[in-house]
Amino acid sequence: MKHTEGLEWAAHACSLLAALPPDTSLPARLLAEFFDLPEPYLAKQMQKLSAAGIVETRRGPRGGYALARAPAEISLLQMVQAIDGETRHFTCTELRRCGPSGVEDSQYLRPCGIARSMWRAEAAWRRELAGVTLADLLRMGMQDTPPEQAAKALAWFQEKLSQDKPTQEQTP
Amino acid sequence: MKHTEGLEWAAHACSLLAALPPDTSLPARLLAEFFDLPEPYLAKQMQKLSAAGIVETRRGPRGGYALARAPAEISLLQMVQAIDGETRHFTCTELRRCGPSGVEDSQYLRPCGIARSMWRAEAAWRRELAGVTLADLLRMGMQDTPPEQAAKALAWFQEKLSQDKPTQEQTP
Repeated sequence: MKHTEGLEWAAHACSLLAALPPDTSLPARLLAEFFDLPEPYLAKQMQKLSAAGIVETRRGPRGGYALARAPAEISLLQMVQAIDGETRHFTCTELRRCGPSGVEDSQYLRPCGIARSMWRAEAAWRRELAGVTLADLLRMGMQDTPPEQAAKALAWFQEKLSQDKPTQEQTP
Repeated sequence: MKHTEGLEWAAHACSLLAALPPDTSLPARLLAEFFDLPEPYLAKQMQKLSAAGIVETRRGPRGGYALARAPAEISLLQMVQAIDGETRHFTCTELRRCGPSGVEDSQYLRPCGIARSMWRAEAAWRRELAGVTLADLLRMGMQDTPPEQAAKALAWFQEKLSQDKPTQEQTP
């Protein structure tokens, strides 16, 4: 049982958007360049985040992706479910009803103990993820990012965003 | 992120072995017949359980699979890890080090907040699964199995195991 790498990409992209000033949005092209990722596949993850209402697309010459809500209002669980879906990890096919000892469906009053136990563990996993917000991830990122990296990232964004500045803002 | 159906099969097979008298072992053929499953694929799951020391193979005319330990000594986590492996669900590729802002590896002192949060949730999931033993699943199964099914299963096993009885036991 594995998450796709798209989850790691989406979580980092959201953390980056959370770190930017609120009026900044980033096109998928710049997000992909910043993380050195293939743009089409990253764009696909951003579309999933958009469909889940986690990011929104801003149009216009400075358009791109921005968070749709405040970082404290977006949980890690919401990001995971946006990318991986919300279906249970354990699917119960009601194996106990199969074979020579199976009886009428109406006689099974609740899911079996195996399914209940698997789902209880999934619920514990979801509770942990629901307790972490993008604001928490941002705080952890600020503590953990090497100062040299923070400086390089800032300089890179200043350069890229000034290049992208629309013409009408360069003239009075 | 999904478990394979092999996990459901393995968990039910172990629960069945836990319900049988201690001196009974079942060949993969009978396990497959009881659950109406394809024998080769179920046998593959049983081999994984065997490699993990959860079941053992007893040889001889009444041979087959039996639990290798007492039901209370086998956790649901051990069964899940035997079938799905023990690797983490979330793989951190250290995305933060990629792209134009990455710095020397030595400057990253610990895994990033995203990886730490994902792994903490996995740990909560594992703790839940570690807290459920085959003895618990057996107890739940006894509460939930419709009495008609229990009777049919018992009759089926009595018939099958008497057919399999070695010849030397049928003569005095």
